Amino acid sequence: MKALQYVAIGQPPEVREVPTPEPGPGEVRLRITAAGACHSDSFVMSLSEEQYADFGYPLPMTLGHEGVGVVDSLGEGATGVELGDAVAVYGPLGCGRCHSCAQGFENYCPHAAGMGITPPGLGRDGAMAEYLIVSDPRLLIPIKDLDPVKSVALTDAGLTPYHAIKGSLDLLVPGSVAVVIGVGGLGHIAVQLLRSLTSATVVALDISEDKLEFAREVGAHHAFLSDDDAAANVAESVGPGPVTAIFDFVTNEPVMKIARSLSGPRTDLVLVGAGAVETSVGLLGQPYGSRIRAPYWGARPELMEVVELARTGHLEVETEQFSMDQAPEAYRKLHDGELRGRAVVVP
Amino acid sequence: MKALQYVAIGQPPEVREVPTPEPGPGEVRLRITAAGACHSDSFVMSLSEEQYADFGYPLPMTLGHEGVGVVDSLGEGATGVELGDAVAVYGPLGCGRCHSCAQGFENYCPHAAGMGITPPGLGRDGAMAEYLIVSDPRLLIPIKDLDPVKSVALTDAGLTPYHAIKGSLDLLVPGSVAVVIGVGGLGHIAVQLLRSLTSATVVALDISEDKLEFAREVGAHHAFLSDDDAAANVAESVGPGPVTAIFDFVTNEPVMKIARSLSGPRTDLVLVGAGAVETSVGLLGQPYGSRIRAPYWGARPELMEVVELARTGHLEVETEQFSMDQAPEAYRKLHDGELRGRAVVVP
Amino acid sequence: MKALQYVAIGQPPEVREVPTPEPGPGEVRLRITAAGACHSDSFVMSLSEEQYADFGYPLPMTLGHEGVGVVDSLGEGATGVELGDAVAVYGPLGCGRCHSCAQGFENYCPHAAGMGITPPGLGRDGAMAEYLIVSDPRLLIPIKDLDPVKSVALTDAGLTPYHAIKGSLDLLVPGSVAVVIGVGGLGHIAVQLLRSLTSATVVALDISEDKLEFAREVGAHHAFLSDDDAAANVAESVGPGPVTAIFDFVTNEPVMKIARSLSGPRTDLVLVGAGAVETSVGLLGQPYGSRIRAPYWGARPELMEVVELARTGHLEVETEQFSMDQAPEAYRKLHDGELRGRAVVVP
Amino acid sequence: MKALQYVAIGQPPEVREVPTPEPGPGEVRLRITAAGACHSDSFVMSLSEEQYADFGYPLPMTLGHEGVGVVDSLGEGATGVELGDAVAVYGPLGCGRCHSCAQGFENYCPHAAGMGITPPGLGRDGAMAEYLIVSDPRLLIPIKDLDPVKSVALTDAGLTPYHAIKGSLDLLVPGSVAVVIGVGGLGHIAVQLLRSLTSATVVALDISEDKLEFAREVGAHHAFLSDDDAAANVAESVGPGPVTAIFDFVTNEPVMKIARSLSGPRTDLVLVGAGAVETSVGLLGQPYGSRIRAPYWGARPELMEVVELARTGHLEVETEQFSMDQAPEAYRKLHDGELRGRAVVVP
Repeated sequence: MKALQYVAIGQPPEVREVPTPEPGPGEVRLRITAAGACHSDSFVMSLSEEQYADFGYPLPMTLGHEGVGVVDSLGEGATGVELGDAVAVYGPLGCGRCHSCAQGFENYCPHAAGMGITPPGLGRDGAMAEYLIVSDPRLLIPIKDLDPVKSVALTDAGLTPYHAIKGSLDLLVPGSVAVVIGVGGLGHIAVQLLRSLTSATVVALDISEDKLEFAREVGAHHAFLSDDDAAANVAESVGPGPVTAIFDFVTNEPVMKIARSLSGPRTDLVLVGAGAVETSVGLLGQPYGSRIRAPYWGARPELMEVVELARTGHLEVETEQFSMDQAPEAYRKLHDGELRGRAVVVP
Repeated sequence: MKALQYVAIGQPPEVREVPTPEPGPGEVRLRITAAGACHSDSFVMSLSEEQYADFGYPLPMTLGHEGVGVVDSLGEGATGVELGDAVAVYGPLGCGRCHSCAQGFENYCPHAAGMGITPPGLGRDGAMAEYLIVSDPRLLIPIKDLDPVKSVALTDAGLTPYHAIKGSLDLLVPGSVAVVIGVGGLGHIAVQLLRSLTSATVVALDISEDKLEFAREVGAHHAFLSDDDAAANVAESVGPGPVTAIFDFVTNEPVMKIARSLSGPRTDLVLVGAGAVETSVGLLGQPYGSRIRAPYWGARPELMEVVELARTGHLEVETEQFSMDQAPEAYRKLHDGELRGRAVVVP
Repeated sequence: MKALQYVAIGQPPEVREVPTPEPGPGEVRLRITAAGACHSDSFVMSLSEEQYADFGYPLPMTLGHEGVGVVDSLGEGATGVELGDAVAVYGPLGCGRCHSCAQGFENYCPHAAGMGITPPGLGRDGAMAEYLIVSDPRLLIPIKDLDPVKSVALTDAGLTPYHAIKGSLDLLVPGSVAVVIGVGGLGHIAVQLLRSLTSATVVALDISEDKLEFAREVGAHHAFLSDDDAAANVAESVGPGPVTAIFDFVTNEPVMKIARSLSGPRTDLVLVGAGAVETSVGLLGQPYGSRIRAPYWGARPELMEVVELARTGHLEVETEQFSMDQAPEAYRKLHDGELRGRAVVVP
Repeated sequence: MKALQYVAIGQPPEVREVPTPEPGPGEVRLRITAAGACHSDSFVMSLSEEQYADFGYPLPMTLGHEGVGVVDSLGEGATGVELGDAVAVYGPLGCGRCHSCAQGFENYCPHAAGMGITPPGLGRDGAMAEYLIVSDPRLLIPIKDLDPVKSVALTDAGLTPYHAIKGSLDLLVPGSVAVVIGVGGLGHIAVQLLRSLTSATVVALDISEDKLEFAREVGAHHAFLSDDDAAANVAESVGPGPVTAIFDFVTNEPVMKIARSLSGPRTDLVLVGAGAVETSVGLLGQPYGSRIRAPYWGARPELMEVVELARTGHLEVETEQFSMDQAPEAYRKLHDGELRGRAVVVP
């Protein structure tokens, strides 16, 4: 079968012919109908040889941690799905048996790393291929007649902001203000989610006017450049008080500076971007009652909820479609910031 | 192997020799080290032929929905447990894949009944035997070096009140009052749970002075006969206001009458007993803001929490031990109210 | 000043000339700009002499527990509001100092009744007058430039369904189904609230086709007659499973029958109508994990949230406007079911 | 009357004779029966002239933000308390009318600072005096027959850790681990609160062996020096996983280093000490799903809950009693770390 693989450190990924895998006992094989390209893939391919080794990822490795497909073959003892079922793959699987996993929060399983359990495409072969092996049927969420291309990004670009926002829902009461920083693949979904799940006033910030327009199209009440005037513009549009929650899909120094200037008592600062920043914390270092969270991906039942949002028309993922042979080009465009929505590869 | 089976409607259960079962693909066989006898077994054996048929249970059926054991044999593709692991069986399993199950609330799976999925001992062969087949490793909760006899009742007599109480925890703040009605197998654990999980004042009600003494021994602050003076006695001991939550392990007319007289604005009336009562509901039919709940058994992660409570010494189940050959006698004593704690059969 | 008063048991209310009241220490006088007529006023006027005496209400009594106005005069020591402030009156006041009141849940204050504290218009003179005395500034919620006529019903017809729905929000995740029974003054707001606060699919039931059309106009996804086919119609439109939550603004036998047929595991049955019904409860009497709640009016911070919903355009109350002299006619129309939205009296 | 006042920057406080204040309209005068000395008073007295000016505090200023007393005189229009009532003073008052205050979270009122509203003893005259003026009866929590000396510290040293812990309660399920860093006036109460409110295993860290012994006396399951071996000692005693929540009553660099080494997925890091530290945050800067919070003091209903904990015997504050004339010495001992519990001044 064809697969898009990361082959050599620092080189672009390549489309290669590899053996079609067979499902072992308890496993399921999917015929992939769509796979999404994500910034975290770019991040992985930007690592040095030493950093990559630290992550313990193999080479070559088929990319793709966003996948939907059709159940194609069942390993012995694999039950609960039927051949032909259209399903989305829950990526951040855990051990499946601990307290965290039993609640569906496999994304926070404290055992997965030690057991060598990794998401597809982030440590083992992923969904950018004609076929994918999934280790357990519980990881397959039915999507029924949802369009694969339109829905594949729900598994990460949908699930990640959903999980981030869900942790702030108790604060996002009527009259609250939610700020989304970075209106890309995840951020443009965050705006829609905030509109569907809350009555908060939604303000988007980005460095590009195009993205601000995009934010308004998908439902932001206000959108401003994330520059030195950002805090003043937000205050003028929604009132002078602190904002209720900030969802930062960028996470770097300049964004943190803006985020801090928007914060006040009880502000929920939610850092979703793949970054790290030094900042001051503590009673005299951050606003009273504020909290800084770093949610990761999302829970298994939450992916079901995201699929339901798409099914009931609350969520539309902006996509650009590529064939498998065009997949390297998809990643180039992603890297160069030439995509508006999500790049989706159809094998 | 030996098994305690319900063989004929209306007759006592019998110890019988049956074939030792083999695990199918994905299944696990346990060597049972302890099995608990429960009032719901008595309830099942009290059904008429027609009622029993309505439940769709087989005959003969091995009893026992409380079981702990040691992993003895793995079916093909069964992973996540090792031979020799000491485990407790999570009884109220669901389909394992729906939204409710993905959060661990398999006890509320809306698909289980339609799919013919039933707990062991309540629709298929249970734990009152030398060996038990469990359909999926996810249902096995490690108990490590906990004593099997002391811990088997955690799976129902522990889990059921735990789940009931957990739904009221947000109300049971300091200064609150919790009333436990019926201090039997579940009720005496409810008292301990309330003391471990909350700072509420705990009042126990029962029709027997012995049980009131038992309640005090396990931690009740006050204990009164559940008679016409109950409400007045409660008011005198904890103050005149409405109580915060009532956990009723009996559920019949007289108890409902007492419960209603203890209720007021926002009282949580939690009906756990296997019964049904007619009562008045609605804004003019129940206290403002009160709610009436009927929780069933408990969630999978909650069983892990109950096991942790036992491991950390917060919970002690009063038990009386029987051999397999004495098992029919255990049920007789249970039926005749001659047990103080939980009857446990060791095969 | 003019006031609409209930003067004699069983007689229609009358517009009468009464002395303009003066605020005592700590009190505030409002010049009323709008007052809402509510079914509970009709209920009060339907009571027999004996029942009315049981409620302990005075005669004559100025009607009106929904009021907005402008701060007109401050008693000694009354601080926190300014002359000229436009405010809505929080009706279900409590003692203001207990644990429940300190959290804003004055509607569940266990002390109010014993202290003779009652809402305006329900035990003491209400808002259907040119002026109203409010006992404490904390009960006045700023409405700024909101239209008085459009916003007065927020104080009850808005707040009551808001509070009812807020108690179910954790259940109303994507993919959930909410049923509203009775699309009148409160029900048509409940539909809008569910659309603004959740992504649930909203189904409305009513006995009148007109009201079904009304429900669809304000956002219901589906609307059906509340007849014997109701449960089948709901199942056909949203799928066969149990619904997630039912908000019943009627509360009588036939509606309870429908509600029960829509219920299943974990259904939240929320009874808001001013009624009482006998029903079966308990583990064998209601669906597993279901609960029956009877919320009353709403909390003080919740009224602020409802005002914010109106300010941000999420909520539009259908109203019919009357002058003070037409006020008796407003109540006649209300009683005879001739109103589509809320009758509002402008003194 | 006598009052302990901060008179000159950098100088110890002095006992001075000042006029007995009279309550204005709506205000209440208390005769103080006990006042607590707190580290934050020392912090205030350590500020430079410039810093003190930035805080906007007056000079001289009567110290004391922990106070209990007896209602002694009522201003005009002050209702809800009676002469002779024994009450505790809720310190972190807000505007009393906004959304946050209406829920009781006056400690996070976004308007208080701008309105010049400050706690007693932190911006205006406090409780270290024979009499104290309280601006509104809602700020007075009845303590009935609780001992003033034993209960005065509930208002801050009790309320602050209570509020901090309450925000983590949903995580502190059976099997969880809570770490308390710093076993002083607040920390020794945190240990007791964790034992009363949760079934978590409680580990205390401190730099002094005496404090470790103190921690064990009040209920810590384990206690270790907060040195380089702390993380290893914790892991050995409670298992290798990340701890569930960390309550840091110190907040400096070395403590942050230990806290970070104890953290993992979903750890709640709660910074209560009056400090500020630079640390790394974000998805690649802190453990997945972890959060960093900086709660401040507590809510008004929470103080009622803390008083209930004391009333029901769940909480004992270690105190050392001083007369008004000894009050300067109390602060000296506090500053020099010579106190084991809380210094309480009885005027």
